[in-house]
Amino acid sequence: MLNYKRYKSAPVVNFEERTWPEKQITKAPIWCSVDLRDGNQALIEPMVVEEKIEFFNLLVKLGFKEIEVGFPSASQIEFDFLRQLVDRKLIPDDVAVQVLVQCREHLIERTFEALEGVKSAIVHIYNSTSTLQRDVVFGMDREAIKEIAVNATKLVKEHAKSFPGKIILEYSPESFTGTELDFALDICTAVQDVWEPAPDNKIVFNLPSTVEMNTPNVYADQIEWMHTHFKNRDSIILSIHPHNDRGCGVASSELALLAGADRVEGTLFGNGERTGNVDILNIAYNMFSQGINPELEIENINEIIEVYERLCKIPVHVRHPYGGKLVFTAFSGSHQDAINKGVKAMHERKKEIWEVPYLPIDPADIGRKYDPIVRINSQSGKGGVAFIMESYFGFKLPKGMHKEFADVIQAISEKQGEVAPEQIMQEFKQNYLERKEPLHFRKCRFEDLAETDNPFDTLVTVTYTDNEVEKVFEATGNGPIDAVLRGLEKELGINIKILDYTEHALGEGSGAQAAAYIHLLDKDTGKTIFGVGISSNITRASIRAIFSGLNRLKKS
Amino acid sequence: MLNYKRYKSAPVVNFEERTWPEKQITKAPIWCSVDLRDGNQALIEPMVVEEKIEFFNLLVKLGFKEIEVGFPSASQIEFDFLRQLVDRKLIPDDVAVQVLVQCREHLIERTFEALEGVKSAIVHIYNSTSTLQRDVVFGMDREAIKEIAVNATKLVKEHAKSFPGKIILEYSPESFTGTELDFALDICTAVQDVWEPAPDNKIVFNLPSTVEMNTPNVYADQIEWMHTHFKNRDSIILSIHPHNDRGCGVASSELALLAGADRVEGTLFGNGERTGNVDILNIAYNMFSQGINPELEIENINEIIEVYERLCKIPVHVRHPYGGKLVFTAFSGSHQDAINKGVKAMHERKKEIWEVPYLPIDPADIGRKYDPIVRINSQSGKGGVAFIMESYFGFKLPKGMHKEFADVIQAISEKQGEVAPEQIMQEFKQNYLERKEPLHFRKCRFEDLAETDNPFDTLVTVTYTDNEVEKVFEATGNGPIDAVLRGLEKELGINIKILDYTEHALGEGSGAQAAAYIHLLDKDTGKTIFGVGISSNITRASIRAIFSGLNRLKKS
Repeated sequence: MLNYKRYKSAPVVNFEERTWPEKQITKAPIWCSVDLRDGNQALIEPMVVEEKIEFFNLLVKLGFKEIEVGFPSASQIEFDFLRQLVDRKLIPDDVAVQVLVQCREHLIERTFEALEGVKSAIVHIYNSTSTLQRDVVFGMDREAIKEIAVNATKLVKEHAKSFPGKIILEYSPESFTGTELDFALDICTAVQDVWEPAPDNKIVFNLPSTVEMNTPNVYADQIEWMHTHFKNRDSIILSIHPHNDRGCGVASSELALLAGADRVEGTLFGNGERTGNVDILNIAYNMFSQGINPELEIENINEIIEVYERLCKIPVHVRHPYGGKLVFTAFSGSHQDAINKGVKAMHERKKEIWEVPYLPIDPADIGRKYDPIVRINSQSGKGGVAFIMESYFGFKLPKGMHKEFADVIQAISEKQGEVAPEQIMQEFKQNYLERKEPLHFRKCRFEDLAETDNPFDTLVTVTYTDNEVEKVFEATGNGPIDAVLRGLEKELGINIKILDYTEHALGEGSGAQAAAYIHLLDKDTGKTIFGVGISSNITRASIRAIFSGLNRLKKS
Repeated sequence: MLNYKRYKSAPVVNFEERTWPEKQITKAPIWCSVDLRDGNQALIEPMVVEEKIEFFNLLVKLGFKEIEVGFPSASQIEFDFLRQLVDRKLIPDDVAVQVLVQCREHLIERTFEALEGVKSAIVHIYNSTSTLQRDVVFGMDREAIKEIAVNATKLVKEHAKSFPGKIILEYSPESFTGTELDFALDICTAVQDVWEPAPDNKIVFNLPSTVEMNTPNVYADQIEWMHTHFKNRDSIILSIHPHNDRGCGVASSELALLAGADRVEGTLFGNGERTGNVDILNIAYNMFSQGINPELEIENINEIIEVYERLCKIPVHVRHPYGGKLVFTAFSGSHQDAINKGVKAMHERKKEIWEVPYLPIDPADIGRKYDPIVRINSQSGKGGVAFIMESYFGFKLPKGMHKEFADVIQAISEKQGEVAPEQIMQEFKQNYLERKEPLHFRKCRFEDLAETDNPFDTLVTVTYTDNEVEKVFEATGNGPIDAVLRGLEKELGINIKILDYTEHALGEGSGAQAAAYIHLLDKDTGKTIFGVGISSNITRASIRAIFSGLNRLKKS
């Protein structure tokens, strides 16, 4: 029995003045990557310096303008990494590196040593402010906790004066979501009073959801409360730093953006302590999917995945939004059918705006392929099989044929599970294109009898084998298909009607092959069936389709 | 460059009357598992009948009272599976099986065949109602789409009349999030008018976020709009069925519960088409963490993971909330330190309510071990190493010693990455307990001189080796530790002060070993260092600690 009585609900904000539920996201926030700090520290094998440099270069390429590079006063590796970035001139002029440091004098001093030569840096100081941590970790009251932050701000201010580059201060009341709002405001204001930011020289107040403690609307209330209570709001960049303990990191971030946040700290694919930091890519692609410029160069997700997985040694889950291998895949028959129709409507109507059922974005727009959109298992239906045949192999099966062929594939998938496109094509060949038993069409000669003014104006001479015995017949009809069929009816003593007939090119150019589909009715049994043939000669393709259909009829 | 201009924002609801942002979740909804349908259909290898039965049994054990078992009219496997459940009497009396079926006569008929012998069933009919699907998939107007639902309701009603068991109707306006609210209400009302539900015979209206299309507050608005506009609301169970395309499935569900939803359809660990259905376990554990009874028997998450991963062949991601291997792990030094202190405060103050920084729940409460809470990499600090030494091996290192030993471990982790607990213990032995060069304590004899009324009332005779040469000395002191140290000072020509001394039992009972920690100052050099010794004899443990410390001083 789950011991739920051991827990209590986290406090909420009574904030009826909230306006965020009315709002919509309209532009990208300032993004700050903390992959190299919060993300890296949570890896079983943290990156070594060369790996960090590769990751840093990726972040720059993706368009991050603020990158937390570590905690240089806490470990030699992080110190060395920052020195490498400076010495090898890897920090572009428009990128600010951010360094985390505790509110301690010797660590702040060491941090400025690490920053030597940096043009623009964000010095990120923090201390934990929550009721719980004040009690069990520090044994300090509010004033003592505030003094830590104020003193550190003074120290950073002093160092910043003599530092040649630009220094922006970021202060985090760490464990903000467990901190009383009035105290969070009080400590930020005390820091603000020392630092004296201005609209052209803003301070960053970062309000982390260090541990996600409640439904995301509560975080939004907390953020909007701070947003409306800060003094000199125009001198402040309101930053958020959500974690994902309740699986709502992305939602918390989005609602916090509605509530007034200007900046988001997070990581690629949500790496980070425990359940991870919020996944910046997920938020950015969400914006993209709503027509908002996310202001990141993330049009090639596969490249991002490759670097991320190699350096972090954590896989992107198959169902991870936008990045997972299965997230643009539809197994369900009705979904496949709707996607099929939606994609067709996009083409036919030349729509500029992407709108396809079950596919919130066009996978190609983020560098992913169409190939895996539809995968066939025993739960799939005719739409999916038809989609595969068309998108992989160019065969536009007539609608009436979808079920006939899908039944063949479903029988296989019920036995073996997923059926790969190659196997579907193999079955298509075996069941239709290469169906040569008992009848095998060999060759044909046509003669145009039009001058005789007879409705039967085509004479065909067909050579075929029946159970490997070669035979020849002549027949007339109002065209080659009609003539061949009439001849075969007579030869075989059967009674066939053509219900439908379609043909299309299998590619471009005059040398392209054609595919012919013929829908036959056996008038004696009432049975209907499709036959398919291909050839660079459209008449031959049709005759092959007839033979294919007749062989299928005989078998069934 | 990301082609964001190809997308447009999804519509929002202008619904100022919303009240959900004021609300809090106070009780569990009705849970309905769709693992065996929506989840299973999205697997590369869908489950075979025996696997489905095992999964069904797990769901029953977890306390699900409503379980969607498939689409029996669509595939033979799903038909057979339901028949097996009935014939083998695997459906408990208090569990309703739910069957999905399209609004088509022959499929509804076949569905009732599959249900024969079921005591309580939910027949779940659906058709797609979104503007997009009406347009590109069906080419039908609102009235035609409504007629499909109404006709199917009539058919189900007719079949239900002669069905011996209980039939509840569930209707889903599929792709609800892409449907105009007035039309969603209109079609539900039309179904309601035919079915004629009552407060003691409710209908289920399931409003799926078939594709997650907007921030979760918009879904909450949509749900509250429906909740307040339904007629005879007390005859309706308002069900939600969120997917996770924007990574906000859990948040959407939670906000929808605030907005008036009564029931949640989802899957274990969020399996399902594309990014998956919403993860019911995630929502349930979120409730649990707030002191709310989730009304599921989910106290053993490892067992759930084992069955899930084996049958679905999809791994639970290492950062998946509650289930991931790393989610109760802290690598960061300051987090480790705070956890250490928080756990200590829990014990010391005998707190009944769980409150530990960075650990939203006690992993033991959901059947997970404490072991992996703290893992040591190069980003970890002294708190973590001390936590490992105490929680794994019982050594309560004195606070002053944390940094000294953590430095040893950090040097290793900077070279190799993560350091396992066993290696930490190995280093502890090598650096402290088994430090026998150059001095190796062999044996000791004590004599109590108290009757001489001398402050130096203990005489010790110590045998040791110095660089493998055996030596013996006699010395007196005010106790054995003092006497041994005085003797060694004289023997070795050194000048030592004991700064601190602590000792504790390493387990229970009189046979337990004791660990002694001694903090030494070399008065000549000003250097301080710790020594540690263990023995079942507390005096011998102390003497070993002195030798350990002196050897460490000599080395350093």
